[in-house]
Amino acid sequence: MPTVPSAQPAAVDVTLLLERGRTLATPVLRSAVDRLAPPMDTVAAYHFGWIDAAGNPADGDGGKAVRPALALLSAEAAGAAPEVGVPGAVAVELVHNFSLLHDDLMDGDEQRRHRDTVWKVHGPAQAILVGDALFALANEILLEIGTVEAGRATRRLTTATRALIDGQAQDISYEHRERVTVEECLEMEGNKTGALLACAVSIGAVLGGADDATADTLEKYGYHLGLAFQAVDDLLGIWGDPEATGKQTWSDLRQRKKSLPVVAALAAGGPASERLGELLAADAKSNDFDSFSEEEFAARAALIEEAGGREWTAEEARRQHAVAIEALDAVQMPDLVRAQLTALADFVVVRKR
Amino acid sequence: MPTVPSAQPAAVDVTLLLERGRTLATPVLRSAVDRLAPPMDTVAAYHFGWIDAAGNPADGDGGKAVRPALALLSAEAAGAAPEVGVPGAVAVELVHNFSLLHDDLMDGDEQRRHRDTVWKVHGPAQAILVGDALFALANEILLEIGTVEAGRATRRLTTATRALIDGQAQDISYEHRERVTVEECLEMEGNKTGALLACAVSIGAVLGGADDATADTLEKYGYHLGLAFQAVDDLLGIWGDPEATGKQTWSDLRQRKKSLPVVAALAAGGPASERLGELLAADAKSNDFDSFSEEEFAARAALIEEAGGREWTAEEARRQHAVAIEALDAVQMPDLVRAQLTALADFVVVRKR
Repeated sequence: MPTVPSAQPAAVDVTLLLERGRTLATPVLRSAVDRLAPPMDTVAAYHFGWIDAAGNPADGDGGKAVRPALALLSAEAAGAAPEVGVPGAVAVELVHNFSLLHDDLMDGDEQRRHRDTVWKVHGPAQAILVGDALFALANEILLEIGTVEAGRATRRLTTATRALIDGQAQDISYEHRERVTVEECLEMEGNKTGALLACAVSIGAVLGGADDATADTLEKYGYHLGLAFQAVDDLLGIWGDPEATGKQTWSDLRQRKKSLPVVAALAAGGPASERLGELLAADAKSNDFDSFSEEEFAARAALIEEAGGREWTAEEARRQHAVAIEALDAVQMPDLVRAQLTALADFVVVRKR
Repeated sequence: MPTVPSAQPAAVDVTLLLERGRTLATPVLRSAVDRLAPPMDTVAAYHFGWIDAAGNPADGDGGKAVRPALALLSAEAAGAAPEVGVPGAVAVELVHNFSLLHDDLMDGDEQRRHRDTVWKVHGPAQAILVGDALFALANEILLEIGTVEAGRATRRLTTATRALIDGQAQDISYEHRERVTVEECLEMEGNKTGALLACAVSIGAVLGGADDATADTLEKYGYHLGLAFQAVDDLLGIWGDPEATGKQTWSDLRQRKKSLPVVAALAAGGPASERLGELLAADAKSNDFDSFSEEEFAARAALIEEAGGREWTAEEARRQHAVAIEALDAVQMPDLVRAQLTALADFVVVRKR
């Protein structure tokens, strides 16, 4: 895992920051979801982990809640109270979960956060429908504020959503291609992960009255933080501890994902890179892929590492982290908020799940 | 088909009104769709009938274009130029087509406007993705105007979209139920058809600066016009001419749709109603339903008519038409615009497709 270069004041407790985001945003998120007509409210509650498949209350893993924490800090960066960022936090979470519901169905993913995905439990139609409903709800939550700022915030969220959709389109098209360049992979990850994290970091500030230039710079921090986040995700997708990530061993390899370590290893050249290329090309045509042993995936992971894909990706996480931190310097904000945004960036690159 | 009670000045040519909507809205719609990244732009162009499945230019049937015509008249009702309504017309068309893309996939419908549906040609993932993209694009088109009015227009569009989604959820849940009441059917149709027509009739006015009370009254006209529209659609779905509608004979019966004529016939009581109830209950359990002959569907249609479902639905179209026209009286607008909105309402209930 990358080492963290930036200074982190002892005062900042990232766990508390994430907890604050969850505590302020979750009740508003739940009451937003309660607006959905049955059975969509139940399906959404299952997706968020608030109930189990039988409808009983559950205390599910609602994710790391990095986005809500960022949206509240975003409001504070503009000098507003953290509460001003709450509708933004909720809207961003709704859009994020809209994309998870649809992507899981499109990708055929059966597990998310240690549980069966919505399409697996409630069927494809409900996954489509509830995804649509969460997307609409995100706009509703913001627009009912009724201010010019809310309109600007919704526009930024719409731009981020379009990027999310573009990223998913790229992800799907790359699956059918033998080779994807590192640049194409970074562009796809910027769309799928960078754009919405960027929006999370600007939306609170916009709701708090920040001008477009300030919002754009905050988005730059968020976008590169998103790329750092995704680089770490790509490392965890191959070498992560299944206990911590909730995914299978070699998860991304099983799904033939052309993630950063893979494309970097393929682009590196040399004997390990070439051998990896031959293996993956054969895998793409193989009928036995689904019955591959642990050892076969381990062999591919070893070749990726030998070709330098693992170290390149860890370095890329550090590089994107540094660009994100540098962007913060261009925005005037309270020292504490700057320290908190820095600490959150540090957390993102050292996390194990 | 219902007779048309309202006075229609000779001056109003509905064909020209629909043509104007198409002429002003289509170029803006096409340039909006051109913003989509490949292959989504191509998939969307196929859906709209601008290209065929092989990618060659086509002059497809883009639908009746009632909504764009209404959005332009909506602007004029508020005293603005028709062009002011164009972004509203485009946004409403985008949302309408988002819902068609997703509904066709959820419902397993293989044909629309005489052509294979998008999920059939380009696969389910593209149907989901391009639907999502059109929904996002609708918000983008409105919000980039950047005015308070545009924010209000987007909020109304969001409300209508939520209703669309609620209606589709009801439609799906009714498929699994033996009985649906007439009231439930009307509520579902109000959500699926009334809400977006209502939005088409208010969105141009809102963009033109109309206050909320005026917009609400215009929406009342549009909502009931939508219910009249849907009642006629339900008649055409059973007794329509396949050449004109582009659907199979007895289309809604083949799809076991609990449309207005069916639920009204079932609610009517009497021998034909009871016989119909027994037949449909047996059909629901039948394994041979897909191989039913023309005669078997014709027998069901005859029972629906005998039980009064056909006449009740035609009367309902007239009733909703009258409520729509009455709502117009509460809004101050130029006489010509009122005559045009009236003529469009008349057209909706006498159309054959």
